Amino acid sequence: MSGVLGIIAGGGELPIAIAESARAAGRDVFIFALQGMAAEQDVKSFRHAWGSLGEVGKGMKSLRDAGVSEVTLAGKVMRPEWGAIKLDARGAMALPKVVAAAAKGDDALLRVMVELFEKEGFRVVGTIDAAPDLIMPKGILGRHAPTKQQEVDIAVGVNAARALGSLDIGQAAVVCEGLVLALEAAEGTDAMIARIANLPSAVRGSAAKRRGVLVKAPKPAQERRVDLPVIGAHTIERCAEVGLAGVAIEAGAALLLHRKKTIEAADRLGLFLLGFHAGAYAA
Amino acid sequence: MSGVLGIIAGGGELPIAIAESARAAGRDVFIFALQGMAAEQDVKSFRHAWGSLGEVGKGMKSLRDAGVSEVTLAGKVMRPEWGAIKLDARGAMALPKVVAAAAKGDDALLRVMVELFEKEGFRVVGTIDAAPDLIMPKGILGRHAPTKQQEVDIAVGVNAARALGSLDIGQAAVVCEGLVLALEAAEGTDAMIARIANLPSAVRGSAAKRRGVLVKAPKPAQERRVDLPVIGAHTIERCAEVGLAGVAIEAGAALLLHRKKTIEAADRLGLFLLGFHAGAYAA
Repeated sequence: MSGVLGIIAGGGELPIAIAESARAAGRDVFIFALQGMAAEQDVKSFRHAWGSLGEVGKGMKSLRDAGVSEVTLAGKVMRPEWGAIKLDARGAMALPKVVAAAAKGDDALLRVMVELFEKEGFRVVGTIDAAPDLIMPKGILGRHAPTKQQEVDIAVGVNAARALGSLDIGQAAVVCEGLVLALEAAEGTDAMIARIANLPSAVRGSAAKRRGVLVKAPKPAQERRVDLPVIGAHTIERCAEVGLAGVAIEAGAALLLHRKKTIEAADRLGLFLLGFHAGAYAA
Repeated sequence: MSGVLGIIAGGGELPIAIAESARAAGRDVFIFALQGMAAEQDVKSFRHAWGSLGEVGKGMKSLRDAGVSEVTLAGKVMRPEWGAIKLDARGAMALPKVVAAAAKGDDALLRVMVELFEKEGFRVVGTIDAAPDLIMPKGILGRHAPTKQQEVDIAVGVNAARALGSLDIGQAAVVCEGLVLALEAAEGTDAMIARIANLPSAVRGSAAKRRGVLVKAPKPAQERRVDLPVIGAHTIERCAEVGLAGVAIEAGAALLLHRKKTIEAADRLGLFLLGFHAGAYAA
């Protein structure tokens, strides 16, 4: 881990959390921000350049000019309208492969992106290497712990999330007293959590009586350098809004953003926050 | 198949479609309508009684008084607030078992209900026996056929729906050009379809350019007498509203309500309607 860290940044908080983590560790950072995904206000405090998913050549040049030899891919990448994105020569050549991969799922798309950068001599590292302080630790964080029923729900959720992951569909599930309330597909975790509020009150909890858990587990696929499950303070807040009792993510293979703020939110709102051990729920 | 057909009716169109089918075949019908699930306007044209999930004794008595020896369970049964439902003596005795089963999923709940009725000497039959004309046939119904890409999406959807089914979570998935847009859990198929409209337009279709398919496949569980996947004209309409290109359900193990009206809706709105062969997508 040396030199300038390059970050190919999609949407959400993760790319900036990585950038902040690297900067705090004394490392220089350069962000290639993906248009329509990354946010100007987030990237503006770092050296950066903008481009589309189709401007691979431009991205590589700006990273190289910035002295980057090690890059990481992070953040939500929504599949673009392929006919509408800006392309440079390198992007146009890579496009057929990228489109084909995207049709197979996010995992395949990310693997192709990793391959493209590696072919050009970049070292591609995962979030865990680029920002090791974001790794979810094992055990209970904060003041609240799951009940026996909630531990059973976590087991159900881990099975469900892993089933989705093995099909490269999603990584998250919400379970309340044995019933799977929601599964994540293309909508993302926040949208999945929000719709719990639309379910009949009999099957879910409330702020007064919290019930049910959010579980996120990584895909069993090889490419764990990209696309690990992520939670942060806003995840806790969304879960609190729909009456959930807590959040469980896999220790060592999921990311916790803004640790202090997230634990404070869990404590304040009465939710547990658990890093479970992968082996505890072996298939 | 003889005598009066008893129908334990939850929500949705299925119980009434079964009642209408039996009546059209010259058979007498009696409905035990579950409070808060079945609708008064639907059941009023048939002999019926009302009761809660906890009034098993009352339900059995009213069915027996009506001359019923053969019953079928049909329609959506939402898990009630156990503390709030009305109980009779029989219901109170069965309750611990029912609550425990419900915590394991809809399948387990339905199996316990079937067991309760069988113990009392009722013959429990599936929709396929009670109303064989509702069974989805094999092949394309109506004027529209899936494209090659849509056939691939159906295969992806069948895999996803079966994975959910094997975990007793749901039976339906929406897939567009390789990407799984939505998976069904406790919210039901209609709510799952509706949220496609919230996804970025790049990953989904529109009324002008239909893309993506709804797939429903039965659970691999043994108890196929209850809870088969169902579609009807309203399913086609919901799919049309969110820009989907068609609907595929498993031939022989899924139900098509109001066949003529449903095919007319598909033809008019430009969607395909396919009954796929179970073996075509062997795991």
